[in-house]
Amino acid sequence: MKIDPSLFPFFTPQGVAIIGASFVPTKLGYGLSRNLVQSGYKGAIHLVNLRGGNLLGQPVYKHVSEVPDPVDLAVLLIPAAAVPQALEDCAQRGIKALIIVSGGFKETGTRGTQLEEQCLEIARKHDLRLLGPNCIGLIDTHLPIDTTFLSPPGPTPGDIAFISHSGAICAAVIDWARGQGFGLSRMASLGNQSDVNETDLLAPVAADPYTRVITLYLEGVGDGRRFIKVAQEVSRQKPIIALKVGRYESSQQAVASHTGALAGMENAYSAAFRRAGVIRAETTEELFDWARALAWCPLPRGRSVGVLTNAGGPGVTAIDALEAEGLTIANLKESTKTSLQTLLESAASVENPVDMLAGATPQQYASSLQVLLDDAHVDSVMVIIPPPPMHTAGGIAKAIIPVICTAEKPVVIALMGERLIQEAVEHFRAARVPEYRFPERAAAALAVLAKRAKYLAEISHSAERPIKPLEKINQTIVEEVLHQYNPGEILSQGDAFTLLQAYGVPTAQPQLAKNAIKAGEIAREIGFPVALKIASNHINHKSEVGGVLLNLHNPAQVEAGFAEIIERTRSVRPGSATEGVYIQRMIPSGQDVIIGAIQDQQFGPLIMFGSGGIEVEGVKDVRFSLAPLSTSEVEEMLERTWAGKKLAGFRNLPPADREAVIDVLLRVAQLGSDFPQIAEIEINPLSVLEAGHGAVAVDIRAKLSR
Amino acid sequence: MKIDPSLFPFFTPQGVAIIGASFVPTKLGYGLSRNLVQSGYKGAIHLVNLRGGNLLGQPVYKHVSEVPDPVDLAVLLIPAAAVPQALEDCAQRGIKALIIVSGGFKETGTRGTQLEEQCLEIARKHDLRLLGPNCIGLIDTHLPIDTTFLSPPGPTPGDIAFISHSGAICAAVIDWARGQGFGLSRMASLGNQSDVNETDLLAPVAADPYTRVITLYLEGVGDGRRFIKVAQEVSRQKPIIALKVGRYESSQQAVASHTGALAGMENAYSAAFRRAGVIRAETTEELFDWARALAWCPLPRGRSVGVLTNAGGPGVTAIDALEAEGLTIANLKESTKTSLQTLLESAASVENPVDMLAGATPQQYASSLQVLLDDAHVDSVMVIIPPPPMHTAGGIAKAIIPVICTAEKPVVIALMGERLIQEAVEHFRAARVPEYRFPERAAAALAVLAKRAKYLAEISHSAERPIKPLEKINQTIVEEVLHQYNPGEILSQGDAFTLLQAYGVPTAQPQLAKNAIKAGEIAREIGFPVALKIASNHINHKSEVGGVLLNLHNPAQVEAGFAEIIERTRSVRPGSATEGVYIQRMIPSGQDVIIGAIQDQQFGPLIMFGSGGIEVEGVKDVRFSLAPLSTSEVEEMLERTWAGKKLAGFRNLPPADREAVIDVLLRVAQLGSDFPQIAEIEINPLSVLEAGHGAVAVDIRAKLSR
Repeated sequence: MKIDPSLFPFFTPQGVAIIGASFVPTKLGYGLSRNLVQSGYKGAIHLVNLRGGNLLGQPVYKHVSEVPDPVDLAVLLIPAAAVPQALEDCAQRGIKALIIVSGGFKETGTRGTQLEEQCLEIARKHDLRLLGPNCIGLIDTHLPIDTTFLSPPGPTPGDIAFISHSGAICAAVIDWARGQGFGLSRMASLGNQSDVNETDLLAPVAADPYTRVITLYLEGVGDGRRFIKVAQEVSRQKPIIALKVGRYESSQQAVASHTGALAGMENAYSAAFRRAGVIRAETTEELFDWARALAWCPLPRGRSVGVLTNAGGPGVTAIDALEAEGLTIANLKESTKTSLQTLLESAASVENPVDMLAGATPQQYASSLQVLLDDAHVDSVMVIIPPPPMHTAGGIAKAIIPVICTAEKPVVIALMGERLIQEAVEHFRAARVPEYRFPERAAAALAVLAKRAKYLAEISHSAERPIKPLEKINQTIVEEVLHQYNPGEILSQGDAFTLLQAYGVPTAQPQLAKNAIKAGEIAREIGFPVALKIASNHINHKSEVGGVLLNLHNPAQVEAGFAEIIERTRSVRPGSATEGVYIQRMIPSGQDVIIGAIQDQQFGPLIMFGSGGIEVEGVKDVRFSLAPLSTSEVEEMLERTWAGKKLAGFRNLPPADREAVIDVLLRVAQLGSDFPQIAEIEINPLSVLEAGHGAVAVDIRAKLSR
Repeated sequence: MKIDPSLFPFFTPQGVAIIGASFVPTKLGYGLSRNLVQSGYKGAIHLVNLRGGNLLGQPVYKHVSEVPDPVDLAVLLIPAAAVPQALEDCAQRGIKALIIVSGGFKETGTRGTQLEEQCLEIARKHDLRLLGPNCIGLIDTHLPIDTTFLSPPGPTPGDIAFISHSGAICAAVIDWARGQGFGLSRMASLGNQSDVNETDLLAPVAADPYTRVITLYLEGVGDGRRFIKVAQEVSRQKPIIALKVGRYESSQQAVASHTGALAGMENAYSAAFRRAGVIRAETTEELFDWARALAWCPLPRGRSVGVLTNAGGPGVTAIDALEAEGLTIANLKESTKTSLQTLLESAASVENPVDMLAGATPQQYASSLQVLLDDAHVDSVMVIIPPPPMHTAGGIAKAIIPVICTAEKPVVIALMGERLIQEAVEHFRAARVPEYRFPERAAAALAVLAKRAKYLAEISHSAERPIKPLEKINQTIVEEVLHQYNPGEILSQGDAFTLLQAYGVPTAQPQLAKNAIKAGEIAREIGFPVALKIASNHINHKSEVGGVLLNLHNPAQVEAGFAEIIERTRSVRPGSATEGVYIQRMIPSGQDVIIGAIQDQQFGPLIMFGSGGIEVEGVKDVRFSLAPLSTSEVEEMLERTWAGKKLAGFRNLPPADREAVIDVLLRVAQLGSDFPQIAEIEINPLSVLEAGHGAVAVDIRAKLSR
């Protein structure tokens, strides 16, 4: 992971100047000075305030120019209007890294936005890096340093880093973490992100040796493709979990396709996170429930879970929760059951979930846990501790912690209660064993561990099957077609077919014949049987006027059919202008799927695959990935959709040509990547024939970007 | 609500005897005595132990026969083998209500089961009522009384009742509730339910004036239909929330239909809970998060929510969560925005979510909340309080509580943090204002309030549109058909068609013609066009041997077709025995849906509706309700499935005959109710023609119960 050297001073500053230190204890400028002084920061601390004098045992400088060496980071908490000059002053003093805590910028409207742009200009001019404005700064509990103004106490030292677009969420999480029993390593509040953004901080935060997991609170990302690239690198080394909010502020753009209607912003984020190896949490509680497990537990080798309990009810709850999370209930070895029988009362259940009964002693908890961990069928264990009627939860905790801490498999605890479990809670937290109040949350934590293990396995033994370069691609034809349209226009059907044909997608493009002889020739060319359809913009219901003929098997039938159709429509609609007759290959009935591509604002071309036909938006059996597609992403789209799964055949439905579908997916993705000016392109349906017989695009829509 | 008088002594005992009181403080029999004595129970307390003497300031009787009046409830905590005699002794003494805390019964195997049956026999003989065995008894915090052996402290008095199949969950919830800041009114642990079960306790617990919400932890229900009836009555008066576990212990019975494969036990429970007005929680945390809101808040009139925050991030999180819960973000009135502008800083956002900015004072919180509550577009409010940088959360709580407590609309709090919010937490809990750590859980609580309000509105102004009695039903035919089969058998297709025809469902039943003349007659009868198909058990791929003819339009074609088919198959398969030719009406293409009925073990006939065809199990667009169906349940099935929604037409798909679908649903439900011996019956597809043209059952499967 390469770290931009200009960001070093944010995390390893030699000296910090607080511009806007206040003498008034109720002011934020006082809180900021207090936190920095009390944080235990070992570098130089310089307080700056026009009044001068002394504050918190430190001299106060009247101006940043007076600040002595060393100083390489400044924190600004002064009125917004004074910030541009302060930036100039800092640059003058040689300070290149600045945290602008002050509000009053972009978040307040046009004037604030102008002020923020002015700050950024100054920064560009002097090579300054800006964090904020409108943020609450940085904390490193190990360096240590605290540049926030938040009311004490600050976070306890820990191994979870938190990067957040919201300062209020930072404040809440710091305080809440204390009650949840986990500490933070580094915390960064990004504010308006005039310069430094979430992507910039990933590598510097991950580089911290104390940080074992990186958590993100995101309201969006600045540069989608860069985020993916950086996050992908970082997540190979340390897990990243993101809570992305603003889900429902979906773009209100008009769309021309099912793909556009179904894509939305969130599918792009999900696809991006998948590709980047970022785990997506849905709530703040999940974010940190999962972070604790990932920070503190070894990873499991598989998905089989052993459950150890002293009561039936919580055991049943655990099984439900584990299965709902897609984990499996370990099938214990016979030798395990035999060992458990010797350890436990005869009425105990030695099947998984192992129910030791209410009288289970701390020693029985410990020995049974060891037996479960020794079972090769068990990849991870959930231990359930309700307030025990006969022994203390604290005693159980003390007995099992040594087993857990020496195990190479993850163990999480469902520790149920409040007052009667407090001692146990403290023991577990001190030993960095993740405990959750109920089996449901413990199960979710185990599921995340399994997910992380699977991700690491996949990226390690897949230097990904390389995708063969696609043949039969003609960019020139596409360029020529697109050249004829203005931004935002919808392509004619013929041109939409041409685009895909140019990219090697087999289509059933209708071809226009102006006379019967030509009709016969075309039919011979595209292959029998064919269908004939009157070509006229004036006739809507073509079959009602006898304007459609199906299943014609030879040139003679086609030629006769041409005449018949022209004759019939003339007699029914005497005035209608006809251009001729369309000839289209008859497609044997296959499995109908939809394949589409749209340009996502943040992440570029987004590919959709799923159940096609007119019901695509109702059934919503679709899956998205970003282009260009990797083989594992293609497999994922096919495996996670019913449309994809049934390509292998289902009951009396014969297997279809899965390889042909993959080929078309790759070609559409390539087209979307090569031509960002195509806003949406969609094949619906792609008729997938029986295995070995290919797939044919039957209908196509395409629209250009504005 | 009628309460069985035999259950009175459990909740209002005049005197309680503890049989198995112990002098040893580590024994459960001591804990039980201690809890009863210390609970503040005002009736008579009688401790019974062979040793006699004194314990906890109470005389100890050597035998229950010595216990003086008053005594109408006994708690037994003696070895299982001694329980039958103790029951006889209690009966002798005139004690008719017994809580058997002792374990060692059904839960331990065959011998325990026999012992439990023996107890039940004794109970039946003497009209005793038994709670347990293998339970932890009852608590009423208001009477007060505590017959459990749990380690103190017991629950604080409150307004949430808890009935549980798991004693360990009781112990956990009592302890956990303290940390969550809610009290319990009544708590009952059901144990093995040899006699009294969850349904028996609903009405007695609901009758408690202190109880405002009833929460259930269920591992199943004993008598499904009775549970629905009682819960329906109770839930009209007080909300019931249930956590049903054991979801994944689905029955392993072989099934013969898609309906059977998709139904599972959980769909039956969901349908039963919906009908009974029971709210289903998925986790223990949800159970009590929701209970607090329902116990403490007035109900909203609609789904529009106002959000009041002092920071952007949590506001965005709240909006996401509210929309995910199906609530809407209130569109504030102009007058509201004007009022807010006068109250707040100019940079504040007066659009919903209302962001007062970080400096918001307690007074601004209170006034803005009042303004939101006064807006007729706002049905409920979420107030967000992160640890505020300038004021204390406690100060904000004190300022807004008077507004909340006088409001007629629900207000819930997202109170984010731990130490910095403790004072606020205590204020809110004392004032019975529900507070949650994050907006996501607060949003879920508001959603439950809206759901409850909707339920009460629906049951009040719908003395349900009465369903017209179905005409054209012939039970005799069904009886005759079923008579020919053994339990567990699958019906022939012909007989399956006959069943549905007898219940007035239009079908396209193939009819057998033995000669050409008969074929013509049948075709005339069922209406043209028709299809012909060779009738032979020896020919599998009938179309390959020329055994199928489609779209025949008149008797002459049919008669000629008959001869042609017989001739062709004879020439291709000279040896094959043919029975004749099937004549079937050609069905115009319609919307294909599936309608099925299966007998659920707990709840009886369960009806399925959804997207049909061969892909029903892949797409899983289905919904279940219990028979007989109410009009609102039918509507719900159609509204919650894509198959149902698109009956109204979608894009270029024309509207289909929705009324015909409803008619078939009601008829299938009626058939399932009238004939419980039909284990599964399924129409797939039911071809629904264009509006006004009806629907036709094209294929049918049916299987008898074992």
